[in-house]
Amino acid sequence: MSGGYVEEHAREVARAAERIRGHVRRTPSLTTDLDPSLRLKAECFQVTGSFKPRGAFNAVLSLIERGERPKGVIAVSSGNHAQAVALAAGSVGIPALILIPEDANPAKVAATRALGAEVIQDGITFANREQRLREVMAERGFTLVHPFNDWDVIHGQGTAVRELLEDEPDLEVVVAPVGGGGLLAGSAISARDHRESIQVIGVEPVAADDAYRSWKAGSIETLPASPATLADGVRTTAIGERNFEVMFAHRLVDQIVTVTEDEIAEALRVAWSRLHLALEPTGTLPLAAFLAGKLPVGRTGLVLSGGNANLQTVATLLR
Amino acid sequence: MSGGYVEEHAREVARAAERIRGHVRRTPSLTTDLDPSLRLKAECFQVTGSFKPRGAFNAVLSLIERGERPKGVIAVSSGNHAQAVALAAGSVGIPALILIPEDANPAKVAATRALGAEVIQDGITFANREQRLREVMAERGFTLVHPFNDWDVIHGQGTAVRELLEDEPDLEVVVAPVGGGGLLAGSAISARDHRESIQVIGVEPVAADDAYRSWKAGSIETLPASPATLADGVRTTAIGERNFEVMFAHRLVDQIVTVTEDEIAEALRVAWSRLHLALEPTGTLPLAAFLAGKLPVGRTGLVLSGGNANLQTVATLLR
Repeated sequence: MSGGYVEEHAREVARAAERIRGHVRRTPSLTTDLDPSLRLKAECFQVTGSFKPRGAFNAVLSLIERGERPKGVIAVSSGNHAQAVALAAGSVGIPALILIPEDANPAKVAATRALGAEVIQDGITFANREQRLREVMAERGFTLVHPFNDWDVIHGQGTAVRELLEDEPDLEVVVAPVGGGGLLAGSAISARDHRESIQVIGVEPVAADDAYRSWKAGSIETLPASPATLADGVRTTAIGERNFEVMFAHRLVDQIVTVTEDEIAEALRVAWSRLHLALEPTGTLPLAAFLAGKLPVGRTGLVLSGGNANLQTVATLLR
Repeated sequence: MSGGYVEEHAREVARAAERIRGHVRRTPSLTTDLDPSLRLKAECFQVTGSFKPRGAFNAVLSLIERGERPKGVIAVSSGNHAQAVALAAGSVGIPALILIPEDANPAKVAATRALGAEVIQDGITFANREQRLREVMAERGFTLVHPFNDWDVIHGQGTAVRELLEDEPDLEVVVAPVGGGGLLAGSAISARDHRESIQVIGVEPVAADDAYRSWKAGSIETLPASPATLADGVRTTAIGERNFEVMFAHRLVDQIVTVTEDEIAEALRVAWSRLHLALEPTGTLPLAAFLAGKLPVGRTGLVLSGGNANLQTVATLLR
C-alpha cells in the first residue's frame, strides 16, 4: 500500500472534476425501496447515457491544456466510449474519427454520427480493429483516446465515485463494473482516498472473468476471444496495464466478484421494475452482485454505469 | 385571480413539506440529452415508485396532528394510492384497509399487503367500490384518505413542484398529469406561488378527457365510464370539487392538453430508451405532450409521476 500513490492520483481526479465541470452532469445518488443500505450512482443519466464522457472529456481537454494541438482524436468502440469521444471532441471543435466494427448496433453508429464524429466501419471487425486503428492513426495523424488504459481516462472516470462519496461520505463498500478497468481503477482511487478502510469491489460476468483471473494470478490474464455476455460493455479480453497497476499491483481493489447471465437478467428486471432505472445489462452488474448476495454487508454504493440498452433484448428479458 | 388564495394554500404546501420530510424522498430534478430546456421531476424514484406518498403522508400525519386519533384509515385504489396509504399508515402505527377491485393487477395487491395493509377484494368492482367503501367505513369506523379530493392530499402533492422550483427557479412552464386532479392542483398552487406568470398545464389521454371538458365547460364533467387507456393512473371519471376549485374556478391551471394512445406509447419508448427512466404510462403524459409539440416553448418542468409499470405491457410497447 502506498498512501502517496493514492493521494497523487486522487489529486488528478480532483483536477479532472474541475476540468470536466460544465461538460458532464453531476448525476444523482439515489436511495431506493430495495434496501436502506444502498446508494445508487445513476450514471445512466450522464450525458450520452453512460459514465464514459467523464474520461473522454478529461482526456480531450487535457490534450489541449498540455498544448498538444491534436489534429483530431481517434477511438475504437462499438459502444458508449464512441459517443463520449465524439461529444468531447465536438465540444472543443476538433474532429473525431471512430472505428466501429461492421456488426455493431446501427443505433449506436447513428448516435455517434449524430454527435458529429466520422465513423469508419468498412472492413472493421472485432479481430482486426486494433491493426486498422494503427493504420488509420498513421494516415491521419490523429491522437488516440484509449477507452481505459490511459491515465486521463482513469482520472476522469474516478469523478463519479468522488461525487458519490461527497453525497454519501459514510459508505463502507463501493462497487463498480469492470471491463477494461477504467471505471473501477478510477473508482478505487477516489474511494481509497476518501477512506483507506473502504472496500472496493469490481463485478464482471462469469463469461468475461479476465479481471477475476488477473486478480487471482497477480498478472494480466487475457481471454482467448471476446466473450458472449448480456453485459456487452465489458467484452474486452483483458484489463489495461495502468488499470492493473491501480487495481491489483497497488491493491486498491479488494475483490472481483463474478455474476452469471441469469443474475444479470434478474438484476435488469429488478432495475427496470423496482428501481425504475432503465439500465443496460452492463450497468446492472453491481446490482446483480448485490441481489445474488455476493457483496459484503454494509453501507454500499453501486455505480450503475449506463443505460444504453438494446430494447429488443430488454423486451425479451422483461417477459 | 386571488393572490390571497394562492398564498394561503402555498403556506399549507410549505407545512406539508415540513410534515412529510423524513418520510418521503426529495426526488432529483434531472436534465437530459433530449432538450436543454427540459427539467424532469422524476417521481418514479419516490418511495413506493410514485408521487402518491406525498399526499398520503400529509393526510395521515395531519389527522394525528389534529388529534383525531383515527382507529385506522381506509382507501379505495387499485394502484399507487393504495401503496402510499398503506405505507403512511404503517409508518405511524395505525391500521390501513384498502379496497381493491377484484380484477386488479395481483402484483399491486401483493405490494399493498407487503406494506402491512389489510386488502379487501371479495366482490369489489370498479362500479360498486364507492358503495362498498361507505359500508366498510361504517362497519369499521375508519377514516377515509381520498386519493385527490382532499386538501391535505392536494397540499402534499404540491410538494413535488415546490421542490422542482427550488432546484430550478427559472422554469416558465410546469406540466403534470391530471386524473382526479390532486397532483395538478397541488402543482398549480406551488407554481403560481413561485411566480404568477408561470404557465401550468395538465395532460390527460384523449380517451379520458374529463378534465379537458371540465376546463372548457367551466363545471365538472363526468365520463360515462372509466376509460380504456394505457395511462391507467388517470382512469377516474371526474376530477374532484376541490381540484376543480383550484384548477379552474381560481384559474391556477392555464390549459389542459390531451394526448393519444400512440403519443403515450411513443413517450414511454423515449423515456425508457433515451431518458433511461422506467416510467409507467401515466408518468409519461407530460413527456408525450412535449414530444407531440403540444406544449408552449420555454424552460419547462415535466412532473413524471411514477414508475409502477406493468412489465408485460411495456415489453410489448418496446418491441
